Amino acid sequence: MISAAIINGQAQPVAPESADQRIENLLSKMTLEEKAGQMTQISVEAFLKTTNGVPDEPHEFDMRKLEEAIKRYKVGSILNVGGNAQTVDVWRRRIETIQKLALQERLKIPVLYGIDAIRGNNYTLDAVMFPQQIAQAASFNPVMVKKAAGVAAYETRASFIPWNFSPVLDLGRQPVWPRIWETYGEDPYLVSEMGKAAVQGYQGEAVVTDKYHVAACLKHYMGYSMPLSGHDRTPAWIPERELREYFLPQFAAAVKSGAKTVMVNSAEINGVPVHASKHILTDILKGELGFKGLVVSDWQDIQYLFQRHRVAKDNKEAVMIAVNAGIDMSMVPTDFTFTETLIELVKEGKVPVQRIDDAVRRILRVKYETGLFENSTGRAKDYPLFNSSAHNRLNYDVAAECVTLLKNINNVLPLSAGKRILVTGPSASSMRSLNGGWARNWQGDNSDKTEGAKNTILKAIRNVFGAANVEYSEGADFDKVLNVQDAVSKAERSDVIVLCIGETSYTETPGNIGDLRISDSQIELTRALSATGKPIIFVLTEGRPRVISSIEPLSSAVIHSYLLGNEGGSVIADVLAGKVNPSGKLPYTYPRHTNSLLTYYHKYTETLKFDEAAGFHPQWEFGYGLSYTTFSYSNLRISSPVLSDSAPVVVSVDVANSGKVAGKEAVLLFVSDEVASITPEVKRLRGFDKIELQPGETRTVTFTVDKERLSFINEQLQRVIEPGDFTVSVGGLKASFRYE
Amino acid sequence: MISAAIINGQAQPVAPESADQRIENLLSKMTLEEKAGQMTQISVEAFLKTTNGVPDEPHEFDMRKLEEAIKRYKVGSILNVGGNAQTVDVWRRRIETIQKLALQERLKIPVLYGIDAIRGNNYTLDAVMFPQQIAQAASFNPVMVKKAAGVAAYETRASFIPWNFSPVLDLGRQPVWPRIWETYGEDPYLVSEMGKAAVQGYQGEAVVTDKYHVAACLKHYMGYSMPLSGHDRTPAWIPERELREYFLPQFAAAVKSGAKTVMVNSAEINGVPVHASKHILTDILKGELGFKGLVVSDWQDIQYLFQRHRVAKDNKEAVMIAVNAGIDMSMVPTDFTFTETLIELVKEGKVPVQRIDDAVRRILRVKYETGLFENSTGRAKDYPLFNSSAHNRLNYDVAAECVTLLKNINNVLPLSAGKRILVTGPSASSMRSLNGGWARNWQGDNSDKTEGAKNTILKAIRNVFGAANVEYSEGADFDKVLNVQDAVSKAERSDVIVLCIGETSYTETPGNIGDLRISDSQIELTRALSATGKPIIFVLTEGRPRVISSIEPLSSAVIHSYLLGNEGGSVIADVLAGKVNPSGKLPYTYPRHTNSLLTYYHKYTETLKFDEAAGFHPQWEFGYGLSYTTFSYSNLRISSPVLSDSAPVVVSVDVANSGKVAGKEAVLLFVSDEVASITPEVKRLRGFDKIELQPGETRTVTFTVDKERLSFINEQLQRVIEPGDFTVSVGGLKASFRYE
Repeated sequence: MISAAIINGQAQPVAPESADQRIENLLSKMTLEEKAGQMTQISVEAFLKTTNGVPDEPHEFDMRKLEEAIKRYKVGSILNVGGNAQTVDVWRRRIETIQKLALQERLKIPVLYGIDAIRGNNYTLDAVMFPQQIAQAASFNPVMVKKAAGVAAYETRASFIPWNFSPVLDLGRQPVWPRIWETYGEDPYLVSEMGKAAVQGYQGEAVVTDKYHVAACLKHYMGYSMPLSGHDRTPAWIPERELREYFLPQFAAAVKSGAKTVMVNSAEINGVPVHASKHILTDILKGELGFKGLVVSDWQDIQYLFQRHRVAKDNKEAVMIAVNAGIDMSMVPTDFTFTETLIELVKEGKVPVQRIDDAVRRILRVKYETGLFENSTGRAKDYPLFNSSAHNRLNYDVAAECVTLLKNINNVLPLSAGKRILVTGPSASSMRSLNGGWARNWQGDNSDKTEGAKNTILKAIRNVFGAANVEYSEGADFDKVLNVQDAVSKAERSDVIVLCIGETSYTETPGNIGDLRISDSQIELTRALSATGKPIIFVLTEGRPRVISSIEPLSSAVIHSYLLGNEGGSVIADVLAGKVNPSGKLPYTYPRHTNSLLTYYHKYTETLKFDEAAGFHPQWEFGYGLSYTTFSYSNLRISSPVLSDSAPVVVSVDVANSGKVAGKEAVLLFVSDEVASITPEVKRLRGFDKIELQPGETRTVTFTVDKERLSFINEQLQRVIEPGDFTVSVGGLKASFRYE
Repeated sequence: MISAAIINGQAQPVAPESADQRIENLLSKMTLEEKAGQMTQISVEAFLKTTNGVPDEPHEFDMRKLEEAIKRYKVGSILNVGGNAQTVDVWRRRIETIQKLALQERLKIPVLYGIDAIRGNNYTLDAVMFPQQIAQAASFNPVMVKKAAGVAAYETRASFIPWNFSPVLDLGRQPVWPRIWETYGEDPYLVSEMGKAAVQGYQGEAVVTDKYHVAACLKHYMGYSMPLSGHDRTPAWIPERELREYFLPQFAAAVKSGAKTVMVNSAEINGVPVHASKHILTDILKGELGFKGLVVSDWQDIQYLFQRHRVAKDNKEAVMIAVNAGIDMSMVPTDFTFTETLIELVKEGKVPVQRIDDAVRRILRVKYETGLFENSTGRAKDYPLFNSSAHNRLNYDVAAECVTLLKNINNVLPLSAGKRILVTGPSASSMRSLNGGWARNWQGDNSDKTEGAKNTILKAIRNVFGAANVEYSEGADFDKVLNVQDAVSKAERSDVIVLCIGETSYTETPGNIGDLRISDSQIELTRALSATGKPIIFVLTEGRPRVISSIEPLSSAVIHSYLLGNEGGSVIADVLAGKVNPSGKLPYTYPRHTNSLLTYYHKYTETLKFDEAAGFHPQWEFGYGLSYTTFSYSNLRISSPVLSDSAPVVVSVDVANSGKVAGKEAVLLFVSDEVASITPEVKRLRGFDKIELQPGETRTVTFTVDKERLSFINEQLQRVIEPGDFTVSVGGLKASFRYE
């Protein structure tokens, strides 16, 4: 019996032999047409009733089209929302309708429905929307990340959807890139740890997920995040050594954690579109990493092999290249050309049947492991916690760990009660700037309507400080100044200015920019406000670190909120009031100059200074973040001056809360390899731990540093550790040991 | 007889067997200490008399130090000037003193003296200083480049110096990099053609140079020019495929042309400093390319392997790594640690004697091939053309082919006589901005003093238009506005404004910047002048394309002068007056946005537009340049619709001067590979020809496109051409052929 036996709500692991046997049994009955159908994924928008090309609201199926897909083309997977978010009830009916059709077919194979439920099931109305990944990374708290992913999985499954295109494991080290906010930041170790936590939160512990978990999808495998031009889906140059050193480890860790699916990088690396790279998809992922799950293309990316990349002369050649390279499922997304072409190619011997069988095995395995063969839909009553106060409270708690205090001159924060506050700036009264993209629709441009019941920063500040103490003036939007004089007048009669600046929502290509500097209108507003002499608190709401070096000196404090999600307004107000003590730290290097973009793990040659623009002189460093209390580090010690193959070095340090309020502290362990055959980075993050301390409390934090943790990829592409000296640093303290 | 027999001033080729025999004979007599000495290159500043650490002027040797170097350490090479440029007489005495000492030694091996005589022998006072390489590239005229190199060689040899660290063959595709102006621009084919012309001009035709030629030095091999950060001598990520596709071909072409020496990239590629890369230095350069000449390190770069790069734990390990990787000569530059350490390493068996012998053979060969064994110095009377009117006239002619007209609204240019002209801007009265770096000293910061007899832009405009018609106001310097009101007042009583903006001189790390935008002070001056409503002619004097998109709309015309050298002022004035008809074309893509830096040979995926910042939308494209006349292209034809392995396709086009004045036109042939296994670039330059046409004249220009010209490096690192369709485009006309 292959089933994921659900006993008391817990999925029981299934013996692999049994699963394999069932998969083989099913596979042996399948026609080529059925196999090609399984490998096809179509966007639901192809099946919706529309008026003038726009889906009717609420969405309804055009049954003729849906039946054609399932009955004629045997389509194995459907994705997407088809425009704007739908209610959970619409989702349930949608999935029930699809599965009913699928189960009428000869082999009764359920459809695998996939959705971009990043940081919450954002395509279902009212589902909790957590901070975006970049903000979650700032928490340096994988426990919180796992909890948030668990809720996202629950609320996704509440819509009867078993597959989530999340997490993003791309390395966020190109700040111009419009998806930097979808990443866990610039450090491979941080991305790995957060990625593993997210996979565990999404999938749960069992091989076969229960009804509260979903299959995760690691994306965008691999090297997507560092385009030369900074623009989305454009070419990257990443030598194989660097690919393996910085971009691969987080995928390897998540595969090892059991991630069931992988989505492929839409762009090219080194002249080869990843959808055409057998080396990356088959040799490395399925070979070296031993990945057993399914590899899905990104949107239209097989067609783009000839339409955009021009490595194929037509769709047929594109399908041949992609499937032979190792793509198991094509996100076509709106027609059946893939299905028909693939059948032809197999008949002509241009795609081996073995390759098709391998792909279908992987797809069927995910269907088994998400329990679809047992229950392809769900029961509404199983999900009482959907959008519950408990879930929303967790959202607040996660956001509170993400918010990052970057500047606080003379402890201007927190603000005492009774202060007269001007709230201003283009993101002050905007749910859109708090949530960013993928918020009830792709570009997140409808959040002010859909999230109207949530607190903007302005609304939350009024709640916390009292409406009578708070004035508001928009001042500027992102593109032009508006009522600057109104803002200045109100500033003059206030004690303090809370200036909310940054970006509006976007993702992917529409988010491309040509200049990383914050927009001119926001600079102009800031300068005008500064002339009043009133202290200015910057609140940054932005998906990427826009360069603010020309106005940063005009601020007294800077609160970085990234894209904090639906509870962001409340958290920011509570930070201003001192109810939340910030504990986030930057998950990336905040640049000072548009053409001087370095990571914290730059090389020594990048630190030579001739002027401030030349060396490593960012606005704020990776790992930087202040608190309303102070933490003192002391007594750094190592278990041995020598690291050997058998014995790791244990590093410990005492951390004390030496201030007056309780606080959380992310303790970061950096290690420097003093000499190596590959030029060593100035430092690398090799461990972190988030702790909470009451005033006067001290805790000892311990890290175990083993050989593997210090290894790197050498010129021969081998992972090695070379004998020599290493320096660890924690909280400004240093110690050395030697590997022999 | 191995000698370079000088008969009637012409060097006669020497039979290689004979040269080899003499080298082997000499080598067999050398001690290890003598060999290590040959491999050592010391900066002359180590041997000069100084006061308070500054060399006395004119330079004089501290003979004790020079004798130590030559008699005790057997130093084989000396370089550099030791601060500021010296007179040709000082140079001659310097070289005579050195060679006299060297020839007193047992084996009578002359010293090989090397100098950065880029675009002219700029370290000898009064030597002609031509346009910098980036400007010469804009001429698209290799004949001019070869002539300029010939004069540079002549004037270098006039100082009795036989070795020139030039040309730069780095690919100029990272506009932030402070040495972009030392390159021939962003296209590998253009760099190759210009590089070959320079090598021929420097070295002449014979294997053994005559007394008017010098050994060229290809630098900086390889991949130096595209640092991730944009800063000099910092890490690059260049996958091997891209290295071979874009960075290697120009070195390969110049090696094939007989270039005698190569200088190594100071930075790292893909984590490996090139000075430590056996793969790049030995396997590729000496192996695949069959390079027989000598490989010299750049400044202090072996020491930097441990001091900066940290791939070696000390100097000894650094020397071992570098010499074993393939470095033949170390630019130490000021001590004898290299020499002593190398002797130790050979004695300990850590550097094989065979490697030393190989290096010394290469060094001796260059000494033979520059005729030093026959005549190690020279005769002053052989160089009557040093700084002659003929040489200076050639400089003017070269500069006149480089200057590039980028904009000319309503034919505002040329200006008619009698116009009242305001000349303003920080580079209007500056020889420094015309010449850039490497101008009588490293940073070129003394040009206003040393080149005082030459014409600044202001002086030349006064000469051409009459001082009475010309007013001047500095307006701003590069960092701050000065007398803007004065400039505005003078503008109001003028007919036209010539606004000279750009950069001051710099090179290498001191030229690093954090923001590619032109400086704020120049933007402010431009806006103030624009408010007068008078037409503004921009004259750009800059080493790299500073982003001017915020002020470009305020200009009526734009003259790009790059770094035109000592005749630049005169050429610009003559362009304004119509005496010179501009014919330069951009050798790089002029960017519009600081964070949107693409080359013209970007990929199709980089052309997708969502807004102007997103796609390919530069300020001006590679190859763009206007004329005072118009050229009409017609009758594009190809010899065959099929390219085969045996028969190239001949492309021809008729070009007519359809305007009213004579003009030169660079005819550029671009080819697009429609489909390939490596994503094809939108287009690539595959041919160019510079022609001159009288009004009404038509000429047919012909290009031969063979298989090799269309080949590319595939994923397996092989150079291939794949069957399929190709499109040629010339002057907006297109034709297609097929390779079968």
